[in-house]
Amino acid sequence: MLAEIITIGDEILIGQIVDTNSAWMAKELNAIGIKVKQITSVSDDADHIMEALAQAEKRARIILITGGLGPTKDDITKFTLARYFNMGMRRDAGVLETVENIFKKYNRPMIESNIKQADVPDGCIVIQNKNGTAPCMWFDHGENIIVSMPGVPFEMMYLMQEEILPRLTKAFDLPFIYHKTILTANLGESFLAQEIAGIEDSLPADIKLAYLPKLGQVRLRLSTSGPDEQQLKDKVEVYAQQIITKLKPYIVAEEDISLEEAILKIMKEKGLTLSTAESCTGGYISQNIRAVRRFLRGVRLLILMN
Amino acid sequence: MLAEIITIGDEILIGQIVDTNSAWMAKELNAIGIKVKQITSVSDDADHIMEALAQAEKRARIILITGGLGPTKDDITKFTLARYFNMGMRRDAGVLETVENIFKKYNRPMIESNIKQADVPDGCIVIQNKNGTAPCMWFDHGENIIVSMPGVPFEMMYLMQEEILPRLTKAFDLPFIYHKTILTANLGESFLAQEIAGIEDSLPADIKLAYLPKLGQVRLRLSTSGPDEQQLKDKVEVYAQQIITKLKPYIVAEEDISLEEAILKIMKEKGLTLSTAESCTGGYISQNIRAVRRFLRGVRLLILMN
Repeated sequence: MLAEIITIGDEILIGQIVDTNSAWMAKELNAIGIKVKQITSVSDDADHIMEALAQAEKRARIILITGGLGPTKDDITKFTLARYFNMGMRRDAGVLETVENIFKKYNRPMIESNIKQADVPDGCIVIQNKNGTAPCMWFDHGENIIVSMPGVPFEMMYLMQEEILPRLTKAFDLPFIYHKTILTANLGESFLAQEIAGIEDSLPADIKLAYLPKLGQVRLRLSTSGPDEQQLKDKVEVYAQQIITKLKPYIVAEEDISLEEAILKIMKEKGLTLSTAESCTGGYISQNIRAVRRFLRGVRLLILMN
Repeated sequence: MLAEIITIGDEILIGQIVDTNSAWMAKELNAIGIKVKQITSVSDDADHIMEALAQAEKRARIILITGGLGPTKDDITKFTLARYFNMGMRRDAGVLETVENIFKKYNRPMIESNIKQADVPDGCIVIQNKNGTAPCMWFDHGENIIVSMPGVPFEMMYLMQEEILPRLTKAFDLPFIYHKTILTANLGESFLAQEIAGIEDSLPADIKLAYLPKLGQVRLRLSTSGPDEQQLKDKVEVYAQQIITKLKPYIVAEEDISLEEAILKIMKEKGLTLSTAESCTGGYISQNIRAVRRFLRGVRLLILMN
């Protein structure tokens, strides 16, 4: 099952913000068995949005759209969707109540543009957004599903996890997608590839190997999909173990974790503590390590800076 | 003048990495007068890459492609480009020398896949990449320009700044693009919009106003383009000053800087120092502030954590 992500907003196309939503969404979709075919960022322009949507509908059955749902004039996504699907607009009582409650909670007066947040294309299924005033809109379009969500990350993430992903899981008989990542250090990707050329050549057609280099590190990723999760894992594990054995001196971790996480895991196992005295990096090392919260229990950090 | 960015790599579409290259490139293109029409992320799949490129060529005259130029089997961009442009492959002596020099410098033996990094489509202009083994390839295609660059950020950034941007500036008579950003805090975007509705309605058609909200803050951006830089700035400044006057209690900065930068500027002006004692944030506040290096002179930080 293929999905596409369309992110709408001039701020992306002038480089004023980095689109971090798409990567998060892609990971979540993969976790329920949906592959992302393409990610497209377009401007707040009706014709361009409609063109991108029409093209995406030809390639994928699920289209997830973020952005352009704010109360200001530059936000045009829902009117564009109404035009695309040939729908009128209606005021949704449920959304209006949510908006009113948000304004009550913060003790703010509502103005016309806030009330208009409750206007939606009349053929869509409205999904309540508890974290903001912009509603989430679900469109069944022939065989396809198009969902429009706000671009604000914590609204989008909550909607995906609580509403969209469960509904997609119910709507389709989805396979499992399995990625196995191995973190290596201290050998360039061409040499790694040479070392494991025999294993790479022996991979079955449905297992894909990718190399992801960054300074001093290369992640190797084996990817596959199919109906039986355990069978997939067992099948990939055979090749993963061959690679790990072959590359033993360069293996840092046998899972998709960062170097910082790998270090903390070892610290925890051995009951070690860490002190950093940072100058130029200004707390960057400590923050990187501290960010890996889940392994922190039992690891003590002391950072001193001047 | 319109450009499009195509980023190639399965790692983007499964959410294993966040595409930060595109935002950086878009900002640089804007700075020389080129607007980005669309950003498209596609997988390491020849048909998909060719489809994306064909469609981009219909919308824009400049197509910048990143990714898929590594020495391993999952990297197929240059062979796909050769197929797209109906070209054969040739070994480029200049690239081969660069690759050889890199391996000499690190005292590593070269293997077949490293030598093959010097193979390029025979109709492209090769641009030397001093920071890596993957060459940058420039294709003149009728009226259009297509450039393929490595996805490794420090290679791509160097190539853009030293080679691509100067060449694009020379190739076209480019206008100026001007963005003026105002940072506000403590008022929601709908209320800001209501406050400045009169000003927004009076904006000429060639000046676009956008609202970029995030928790507790809204950036207002006025954008325009034209042949005369000073004239553009003067024209936008008239409306910017009207907005700043109207929103006085909420204005944090009259330029596109972060809250941290704004704070540091005030600290510098007043000769203040800052101490943070961080627990849950684990150095995050200090790192955020420390990251704004250029204003740091004269500002002392002391961070203590346990």
